[in-house]
Amino acid sequence: MISEIFLNLVRQLQQLPGVGEKTATRMAFSLIKSQKSIELADAITDALTKLKNCSKCNMISDFDTCEICNNPNRNNNLLCIVKTSQDVILFEKSQQYKGKYFVLGNLLSPIDGIGPDEINIPKLIELVEETKPNEIIIALSPSTEGEATIHYIYQIFKNHNIKITRLSTGIPLGGNINYLNQLTLQNAFVNRHEV
Amino acid sequence: MISEIFLNLVRQLQQLPGVGEKTATRMAFSLIKSQKSIELADAITDALTKLKNCSKCNMISDFDTCEICNNPNRNNNLLCIVKTSQDVILFEKSQQYKGKYFVLGNLLSPIDGIGPDEINIPKLIELVEETKPNEIIIALSPSTEGEATIHYIYQIFKNHNIKITRLSTGIPLGGNINYLNQLTLQNAFVNRHEV
Repeated sequence: MISEIFLNLVRQLQQLPGVGEKTATRMAFSLIKSQKSIELADAITDALTKLKNCSKCNMISDFDTCEICNNPNRNNNLLCIVKTSQDVILFEKSQQYKGKYFVLGNLLSPIDGIGPDEINIPKLIELVEETKPNEIIIALSPSTEGEATIHYIYQIFKNHNIKITRLSTGIPLGGNINYLNQLTLQNAFVNRHEV
Repeated sequence: MISEIFLNLVRQLQQLPGVGEKTATRMAFSLIKSQKSIELADAITDALTKLKNCSKCNMISDFDTCEICNNPNRNNNLLCIVKTSQDVILFEKSQQYKGKYFVLGNLLSPIDGIGPDEINIPKLIELVEETKPNEIIIALSPSTEGEATIHYIYQIFKNHNIKITRLSTGIPLGGNINYLNQLTLQNAFVNRHEV
């Protein structure tokens, strides 16, 4: 009955997390009011077509290697292993950490067919052998898959003469690191301990 | 520091109503995970480049005249005047009303430079003279600008031998019709009274 072009926009907006039909309709009306919305369309297209993963650490990047990997002021002795690029942004905001990162992209979950190759373990081993960090900080959420992944990575590197740490407690067990406040997160970095 | 392409996507997503930096970041990560997001970019572009306003009623439309104006089953004797296309969608959902619409696009507000031309009064007069409705329902929010607009339209048509009604009370004074539940809205339609 109503404009198919408009209804399609409402439908597509419902792809966004937490956006139902009512919110999508409100967003759609807001978008069609301003020609600036074309910049959102372009930004989405750019992100889908131009964004890469850093060839060293897997972090999302505009270039082959990311700005953190390229930055000579970052401490090569520290390697922080995280699940997603989103986690890197989170840690960078807390300004607690000045080392390098490695983004797994996922957590081990054999039941879902996610094994060591799916979490980029070969690439991680390569990076560790190349950069030889003194300490590996495994910064994963303490969920079932997180714990399994922490122990899997620990087993790989425990005899490499590298200190292997994990984030301190303070993170509620079974919780998700994306929903912590900055203070709790900084505290967890400071109180990290050996696996 | 982090990907400029990604940060730009986060910035552009903050154009959306009710979306701050944190929500935009979550949306951006969700968008870059799925190639389906390109359909959202296309939908926004389509909406901005192809959507028109109906030449008769001003409602957003894929064609020169909208499907409501073109529908021979809609009652030409009733004309409902609303502020925005969003209001038309709202009323259509309540399935209470089977007449035609006219979308003002705005409310009178001399202080903001919004006069009769800015709310399409000439086009409204043309439509009324063409379709000669028995009743004009002025369905505007009872805000200051809404009241001014209701009375302005009433003055224009009061001697045209047309019944001029407005939505019944039940809508909280100073409230906004976008946030009413369907029952209240249906009730307001049923209890409409002459200005």
